[in-house]
Amino acid sequence: MALIVQKYGGSSVGDAEKIKNVARRVARIKDKGNQVVVVVSAMGDTTDELIKLAYQINERPDERELDMLLSTGEIISCTLLAMALEAVGYEAISLSGAQAGIRTDATYSRARIQRVDPERITRELEKGNIVIVAGFQGITDEMDVTTLGRGGSDTTAVALAVSLGAEVCQIYTDVEGVFTADPRLVPEAKRLPEIGYEEMLELATYGAKVMHSRAVELGELFNVPILVASSFNDNPGTLIHGGVSMEVRNKVKGIAHDLDVAKITVVGVPDRPGIAASIFESLAKANISVDTIVQNASINNITDLTFTVAKSQLSKAMGVVKPIAHSLGARECVSDAKLGKVSIIGTGMQNTPGYAARMFGALSEKGINIELITTSEIRITCIIEEAKVKDAVRALHRAFELEG
Amino acid sequence: MALIVQKYGGSSVGDAEKIKNVARRVARIKDKGNQVVVVVSAMGDTTDELIKLAYQINERPDERELDMLLSTGEIISCTLLAMALEAVGYEAISLSGAQAGIRTDATYSRARIQRVDPERITRELEKGNIVIVAGFQGITDEMDVTTLGRGGSDTTAVALAVSLGAEVCQIYTDVEGVFTADPRLVPEAKRLPEIGYEEMLELATYGAKVMHSRAVELGELFNVPILVASSFNDNPGTLIHGGVSMEVRNKVKGIAHDLDVAKITVVGVPDRPGIAASIFESLAKANISVDTIVQNASINNITDLTFTVAKSQLSKAMGVVKPIAHSLGARECVSDAKLGKVSIIGTGMQNTPGYAARMFGALSEKGINIELITTSEIRITCIIEEAKVKDAVRALHRAFELEG
Repeated sequence: MALIVQKYGGSSVGDAEKIKNVARRVARIKDKGNQVVVVVSAMGDTTDELIKLAYQINERPDERELDMLLSTGEIISCTLLAMALEAVGYEAISLSGAQAGIRTDATYSRARIQRVDPERITRELEKGNIVIVAGFQGITDEMDVTTLGRGGSDTTAVALAVSLGAEVCQIYTDVEGVFTADPRLVPEAKRLPEIGYEEMLELATYGAKVMHSRAVELGELFNVPILVASSFNDNPGTLIHGGVSMEVRNKVKGIAHDLDVAKITVVGVPDRPGIAASIFESLAKANISVDTIVQNASINNITDLTFTVAKSQLSKAMGVVKPIAHSLGARECVSDAKLGKVSIIGTGMQNTPGYAARMFGALSEKGINIELITTSEIRITCIIEEAKVKDAVRALHRAFELEG
Repeated sequence: MALIVQKYGGSSVGDAEKIKNVARRVARIKDKGNQVVVVVSAMGDTTDELIKLAYQINERPDERELDMLLSTGEIISCTLLAMALEAVGYEAISLSGAQAGIRTDATYSRARIQRVDPERITRELEKGNIVIVAGFQGITDEMDVTTLGRGGSDTTAVALAVSLGAEVCQIYTDVEGVFTADPRLVPEAKRLPEIGYEEMLELATYGAKVMHSRAVELGELFNVPILVASSFNDNPGTLIHGGVSMEVRNKVKGIAHDLDVAKITVVGVPDRPGIAASIFESLAKANISVDTIVQNASINNITDLTFTVAKSQLSKAMGVVKPIAHSLGARECVSDAKLGKVSIIGTGMQNTPGYAARMFGALSEKGINIELITTSEIRITCIIEEAKVKDAVRALHRAFELEG
């Protein structure tokens, strides 16, 4: 007997029939003698519809109120799944984030889990219940409801797997697993049977929408294996874990891409200590996430500072940066909203020459100009023109022989 | 400065525009320097839609799960009302039943409020917030969500008015107040400017759908004045209170009716102690509410026992009663599902002869046969054929000169 945590996304519980299908899948795991905890997202478009309703009433809805509103979506789906399990003869109980002991800080709309008090879940499991937990939500010490941000149900699932000591956390979704590239762009992309946490993290952060990166981080930190697979069939999916065998390391695992990139360059800024801090602290205060940051070597103590943000945040970010750039004596502040990002990801690239050259060569062959380059231990990323992203992903997939 | 509790029903918060309208009404009360607590029901048909969804998944949904599911309806409307108030410049905060400290027993689907812990509400009021509370719901000591049964938001409002020491509890709904009879049946029916708790209780219990009777009971017990008025205009409504002036007592206040009556008669049952108990205890265990009970005087130690239930519960009740009747040696068990109920209500009727005679006379003149009669201190009720209820209400309204 093992304890298994499963998570089903919104498209997997989109209507009554799909919920019944999930119930049958959960029941099969229970039948094998396992204890099962299931985390669910809100049904289909529920969250978007609630957001729409909120904006009809208030153009800038309060985040605390919005979180409490959105939390109802997951409560609806988890009570319905409990009913569906009972309908086929299984004992089940639904728990809200609060009841499940998901304790968070009070950062509404993107709260962080501080701890899980698993007493109630454990008690219900011991009674023989299948426990269904509302994903995406938690509660503060003041008993206020919070949400964990988009994709937060993945984080709920991994956090529960950690605190309950689950054997595995299974993330069921509408894709078949993690692929060498987005199959919509690259038809010959292949499913990876397994991948390391860090590689998955880079893939998730650098554009692969399969899983929420916070959930992968949490899995890595506590070494919980995470299976990503389809909720609509029994295909094997991709296992994300720490013990990926030696022989599959040291090569490119996959190509990630992201079409949502805008770039801001502060041109001609004096190169003295504190400049970067004053810009990025202000952006953080304005709640703007900055992605890639590049500062070129300075010439005559004057440098250019470039960074990228999501396109939706560009105008807000320019509003923050312009007055600071001015007060710092920078020459000007320019932006470009029509960019995208391609990355090659794989462990050990840093210690193996040739990857970067092969990447730049493949892009150059296609006539794709590289605007910015950043690298990590296991990733090389190029910012390029948005319209060229599709070609770039295909070219890189071929260049690194990922079609298998 | 006073503390005022207001409650808005589902039709008053049916869409974004209506919620904005409620926000303007609430703001007006706040502008007068009052502290305001607002209880809201779920938007429009939300509750019915959630119930439908549940039954699509499970023909007999678990009551705990159903309560948790339904509780989301009121959370949605209370967060939206808080956003609507913020949109027009007022500080507001929404609280779920749990957050508002509504503690109940664990009788799912019809929980009773055991106490209110008003600390959080008081703290928010002291901060200057308008406090919006999700009606209809509470929480057990185990942190499980309960609902208070149909119309339970009225009970939430009065319970909060009691525990916060509010000056008045205002129930805003889609009717103009309490009328001498249902204006849809009797066009000349008049709004009552005031009415006593007991009279209102009889009206509510005996078919006037204006207010949940448990809420009136609670108001009476703690002597909280309750105003019932329309949420769509500023008409004065009806004040339910204890200090109704002497001169308006001792007369018929209104006519109540109910079309949802089914009758079961256990015929020829031996008249010995314990018979009624064995029948009604079994019905109570099966969770069937029995309304009127009549037992005729026995002849040769054989009697007939008649009682009424809601039509929807008739077949379940017959299933419970038939085997018991058989084991008690009763001759047979018969039922009639096509009945209705008319009542005249007013304090002091018991001490004033002539009311009953006038009632029976008015029905007889219209050729309406009376199946059963029951009375209380302030009410006389006749069970009659369902098809005759409309005529009966009109005849009684005229006979007691309620048109003014």
